[in-house]
Amino acid sequence: MDDHAHALPVFFYWLDLLALAALAASGALAAARKNMDIGGFVLVGIVAAIGGGTLRDVLLGYPVAWTRQPEYLVICLVVTVAVYVATPHVDRRETWLLWADALGMGLYAAIGADKALAADASPLVAVSTGVIAAAGGGIIRDVLCNDIPVILHKEIYATVAAAGAVLYIGLHDIGGLDYETSLIIAVTATFALRAVAIIYSLSLPFYRLRPG
Amino acid sequence: MDDHAHALPVFFYWLDLLALAALAASGALAAARKNMDIGGFVLVGIVAAIGGGTLRDVLLGYPVAWTRQPEYLVICLVVTVAVYVATPHVDRRETWLLWADALGMGLYAAIGADKALAADASPLVAVSTGVIAAAGGGIIRDVLCNDIPVILHKEIYATVAAAGAVLYIGLHDIGGLDYETSLIIAVTATFALRAVAIIYSLSLPFYRLRPG
Amino acid sequence: MDDHAHALPVFFYWLDLLALAALAASGALAAARKNMDIGGFVLVGIVAAIGGGTLRDVLLGYPVAWTRQPEYLVICLVVTVAVYVATPHVDRRETWLLWADALGMGLYAAIGADKALAADASPLVAVSTGVIAAAGGGIIRDVLCNDIPVILHKEIYATVAAAGAVLYIGLHDIGGLDYETSLIIAVTATFALRAVAIIYSLSLPFYRLRPG
Repeated sequence: MDDHAHALPVFFYWLDLLALAALAASGALAAARKNMDIGGFVLVGIVAAIGGGTLRDVLLGYPVAWTRQPEYLVICLVVTVAVYVATPHVDRRETWLLWADALGMGLYAAIGADKALAADASPLVAVSTGVIAAAGGGIIRDVLCNDIPVILHKEIYATVAAAGAVLYIGLHDIGGLDYETSLIIAVTATFALRAVAIIYSLSLPFYRLRPG
Repeated sequence: MDDHAHALPVFFYWLDLLALAALAASGALAAARKNMDIGGFVLVGIVAAIGGGTLRDVLLGYPVAWTRQPEYLVICLVVTVAVYVATPHVDRRETWLLWADALGMGLYAAIGADKALAADASPLVAVSTGVIAAAGGGIIRDVLCNDIPVILHKEIYATVAAAGAVLYIGLHDIGGLDYETSLIIAVTATFALRAVAIIYSLSLPFYRLRPG
Repeated sequence: MDDHAHALPVFFYWLDLLALAALAASGALAAARKNMDIGGFVLVGIVAAIGGGTLRDVLLGYPVAWTRQPEYLVICLVVTVAVYVATPHVDRRETWLLWADALGMGLYAAIGADKALAADASPLVAVSTGVIAAAGGGIIRDVLCNDIPVILHKEIYATVAAAGAVLYIGLHDIGGLDYETSLIIAVTATFALRAVAIIYSLSLPFYRLRPG
């Protein structure tokens, strides 16, 4: 994030890597569901983890973050290989993944919005960029696995990401709060909202799928 | 289009927004066919509407248009939410959509070609860029909905877009006609060609699909 | 490749065009399997041929190669139309395609790695860029055809591309060998490895696909 208007505070840097690992694991588990081999695990895991940030950077005209920060790829490699080795022993609907992802989603949404505003985008564009950064990796993951992207069936995901981006913009750019405090509040609130959504979603899987 | 070699005349600016609305509606109707929720409607609608222009700008190295023009997103939001609310009362094969899309296709093809030439691309690259701008949004829409892109089964779409781009280049860059006149002629001719194609296509849906 | 750190030697320029033609043909054959029309042949063929290089250039911030080199599109057009005309007489699992593709894969992997290093990327990023350049076109081709990308089931493809990129980096950037010699050795070694992989793969098609 060396091109970011704001340097990411140390705590959030580690949160960023945790979110990355959760997304990489989600990609590897998707590869497991499709019975791919190690190459598929690594590729889908990497794409799931860095896809959203890549779209964000390309759309805004920033250099693509992972091409400057090799530790991103190292984490993806380690996580996806670990999942491959552990797959037979892993529940494919790992709950901890949902929670790590929920933390990361709020962070990606807020960082995406911040990067957009730093590139002189309007608030609505910034919210969209936040949603793309938070949801883009999962969308590409599902497209590669030949599924309809799961978030397109769960409004609560994109909507929560949008709410997080709106909250961050409100706190930092309208309210005048400092970067770190705005980030903490936005990420915490998004996480809480998503926690409700997870519990809600788990009880309503694909409820809306009905014949056309 | 502030980075465009040619400023878009006022009449075409409104035509551009109409085409955008038609594409957003096509995305929302695709979401309806897949029984998505409001989040899916908005996301697929936005991607269908701005996908082609985004590809065009990224490929040519322009700043991405919609990140500079927030009214694009506003229109997508309004249209997709309106379709969501109206869905039970809407015929999913709305004919007016085809006609609005036909108008927009010619415009996107010509603008795409013009932007490519302004970036010093060769005429063949300019025609390809025009086709990508005209067809890219629909292709991404169908990929997200886990369908084979519909235009890959209907030659008449991509071919008409290519013809429109060729005509524009011929009139403006070879024939020396001014920008606005070239645009009017190219868009009108593309619309007429597509009108024939629509009537033809409607009578031959998926005719070419036969066992391999 | 005018923005490339290294100008491509003449021999490799022709190899590059051969690889491009092989990829375009693979796209056209994929279109044939899905019973597309001439428009689908051309579009899927072009995307298969230039997709990997486009991703590479966009990720690294280079101008997109095919927008500067119109001969790329000419070759794609000629090849895809030729396949369309010849389709009924062509075995859809043409072996020569696999061999031409194997030559091209090594070249794309090495060039992708070289371009990344020239953009000051780390070796791990360079290897990833090489894999993306070598495999990206085929992945997009399969996504457009609504298939799970074939290389995600055949580790041996992405792994061979990665090995080729590693070898090139080792020879040129660590070993200090000159560009042309490094390229010849890396491409030859990748081809040999892939030749083994092809024979191995052909005897194990989709063997790993088993119920979850």
